[in-house]
Amino acid sequence: MADAIIPDFGDDDETDRKLVIICSKGNLDMAYPALVLANAALGEGIETHLFFTFWGFDMITKSRMHDLQFSPVGNTAMHLPGRNTKMPQSLSPMPGMTQMATKMMKKQIADLGIPEVPDFLDQIVASGGHLWACRMSADMNKLEETDLRDDVEGIINATDFMEISEGGQMLFI
Amino acid sequence: MADAIIPDFGDDDETDRKLVIICSKGNLDMAYPALVLANAALGEGIETHLFFTFWGFDMITKSRMHDLQFSPVGNTAMHLPGRNTKMPQSLSPMPGMTQMATKMMKKQIADLGIPEVPDFLDQIVASGGHLWACRMSADMNKLEETDLRDDVEGIINATDFMEISEGGQMLFI
Amino acid sequence: MADAIIPDFGDDDETDRKLVIICSKGNLDMAYPALVLANAALGEGIETHLFFTFWGFDMITKSRMHDLQFSPVGNTAMHLPGRNTKMPQSLSPMPGMTQMATKMMKKQIADLGIPEVPDFLDQIVASGGHLWACRMSADMNKLEETDLRDDVEGIINATDFMEISEGGQMLFI
Repeated sequence: MADAIIPDFGDDDETDRKLVIICSKGNLDMAYPALVLANAALGEGIETHLFFTFWGFDMITKSRMHDLQFSPVGNTAMHLPGRNTKMPQSLSPMPGMTQMATKMMKKQIADLGIPEVPDFLDQIVASGGHLWACRMSADMNKLEETDLRDDVEGIINATDFMEISEGGQMLFI
Repeated sequence: MADAIIPDFGDDDETDRKLVIICSKGNLDMAYPALVLANAALGEGIETHLFFTFWGFDMITKSRMHDLQFSPVGNTAMHLPGRNTKMPQSLSPMPGMTQMATKMMKKQIADLGIPEVPDFLDQIVASGGHLWACRMSADMNKLEETDLRDDVEGIINATDFMEISEGGQMLFI
Repeated sequence: MADAIIPDFGDDDETDRKLVIICSKGNLDMAYPALVLANAALGEGIETHLFFTFWGFDMITKSRMHDLQFSPVGNTAMHLPGRNTKMPQSLSPMPGMTQMATKMMKKQIADLGIPEVPDFLDQIVASGGHLWACRMSADMNKLEETDLRDDVEGIINATDFMEISEGGQMLFI
């Protein structure tokens, strides 16, 4: 609104932009959207924060982060590979299905040259992204800082989160 | 804050508003919230973008968009019709349950005069809404532009998405 | 941008901030994130609105709000208590599993001193939070104002929602 008065010093708007993503899921398919968006945001010079909470806490927990899985259970958009045939929901809870579906999805993602979740987080941190852990989730899981990735900047409560997210575009994944 | 200096030319704020919805789910019940919100936003003169990714890609894929389904599996808020009795989770993965639940939900939605998903997207585009497809999802599904609705404006990557979403209110559904 | 011209009257930015959360899930684990964030936002003096729609409608429906449940079905981040062992997905739809998992989660939450959902909503309203019900969801469930918590301020349509959410940070949970 004050364009006529204040000179434009270039891409100020761009550098003022902030993206704050809440990662609440620990299934493989819902871990990736946050990582892909964060990575793109950092490439555009956007200040980027990832806040890990509830099931998403697995993404930064050392003992769990290498074993995120994918389940087709309840997902009616799961198709048999290379076809338009949906996987029958009655098959999806059968023993071994999670392992098979996880392996298939990991291959699909690797084939696109996209890193595994822990490596992708390494890359995001190297690009300047900020990782935060939720205090309530840490307490529910009885986990401490030493249980988490070393590059997590802190275990913070929801009030701290509200301060970090001020002025940002927010996503809950 | 500069109200005293800059004259108010009316509903400028309203016309500057932008809504960007990421559609990541392909289940029927999680397809509708984006459509209902987009439709309302367009009615208010808000610039509206829908970005289809992961399972939400089914919503714009010609061979799949007429067959979105609903599954009560894992959804503990699913009640037996007209009652407060919850559907037992042990029943929900049984053969035929997805078909039955889908049929029931489609009827509930049709009874309210709300169009089916492809028709609702027609209406959203006619009202000025923008549809975008995710490059990574297209590659994972081995789908091309010809496989998608003709009114999808492009298959774009996450960087393009960050540019489109600048200054917008964002939702991840 | 107009800092040099307009005097700063203190924490104006803070008090102008608005948070609008769409609550679309009725499972216990996805009811809490909205409540925790809303509570923190109110503590920071942020105008806070919760909009209950689809499965989230159960959170404000008198006959259902005391019986939200949790299901491990489809959630591959569900671990056996106190271990890093994942619960096998093939076990999760078995009879009694929802009840057991719900009881376990309720205890985990109570142990942290966090109130049950209806009590937490009481507290949010007492702190100035606003509760809104979705018209479409009310119609789908054939529910009226008398079926909902008395402190729900109204059953509103998506257009009303777009007006309430103007200028706010938005989350879809």
